[in-house]
Amino acid sequence: MIDAILARRSIRKYTDEPVSDEHIRAILEAAMSAPSGMNRKPWHFVAVTDREKLDRLGATTTSWGMLKEAPLAVVVCGDPGISEKYWDQDSIAALENLLIAVSMLGLGGVWLGCHPNPERVGPVREILGVPEPVVPIAVLSIGHPAEEKEPRTQYDEERVHRNAW
Amino acid sequence: MIDAILARRSIRKYTDEPVSDEHIRAILEAAMSAPSGMNRKPWHFVAVTDREKLDRLGATTTSWGMLKEAPLAVVVCGDPGISEKYWDQDSIAALENLLIAVSMLGLGGVWLGCHPNPERVGPVREILGVPEPVVPIAVLSIGHPAEEKEPRTQYDEERVHRNAW
Repeated sequence: MIDAILARRSIRKYTDEPVSDEHIRAILEAAMSAPSGMNRKPWHFVAVTDREKLDRLGATTTSWGMLKEAPLAVVVCGDPGISEKYWDQDSIAALENLLIAVSMLGLGGVWLGCHPNPERVGPVREILGVPEPVVPIAVLSIGHPAEEKEPRTQYDEERVHRNAW
Repeated sequence: MIDAILARRSIRKYTDEPVSDEHIRAILEAAMSAPSGMNRKPWHFVAVTDREKLDRLGATTTSWGMLKEAPLAVVVCGDPGISEKYWDQDSIAALENLLIAVSMLGLGGVWLGCHPNPERVGPVREILGVPEPVVPIAVLSIGHPAEEKEPRTQYDEERVHRNAW
């Protein structure tokens, strides 16, 4: 069953098929089932299907070009006004849930880092109208996969310590 | 299949049964299958099964008492020396993978926040010998569940924005 976690790979190529509203709802339900400090849920999600907005997001930085082909982006935002300490950690837990759900549904997605790069946060904030103090942490590019990758772990014994460093 | 994500709940009560080495290996494989910026994998994991160390961790702060009953803790650490920008985000993605794997295997676990609380980071660093600049981000308390919780989402339409805020 853990295979479902190992099967999540970064998918950057998509078919033309749109992502259905049912799938968008399902991946957001998975995201919002993440744990959060004091259960404050300091997250917001902007689901972008508008072609012009996707193209503008894709022009933000050279490494985001796949957004120009993607039918969906989900921008994961954290709100320090809701949880000063854990707004970023909790939002990333929700993000990872969402990516696993994408894979489980037969969709494909890739995590594009935004925060803490001001030259990315600024344009994303402007394109989507994200208000202060909310921070766009990451952009997830999502679609129906047009590439296949094998499941894999990257298990490395050197990163594992037993009872002490 | 997304049900497996919704089924992950915070489990704070455990039976006396130890967590097997096979299960420890499996949850660490799941953790290390997470994506990371530039695939740098800036994470480390300290698997603690030593009773005395678990008890000392459990005495760090009043909200960590369940560690005194838990047969296993996994301390998730991030290394800014490996990824200056994404050490914390990538380590949290691995953490969330690990928590979902725990649930999938029929184990139970709960995320105990450590960073950015110096009064927690300091003792954890000292008890486990975590070297600078590595940061103990969170402690996961894990065991065989002695409590049951229903799957649930916390879906909130107010946190969802379509194409713009």
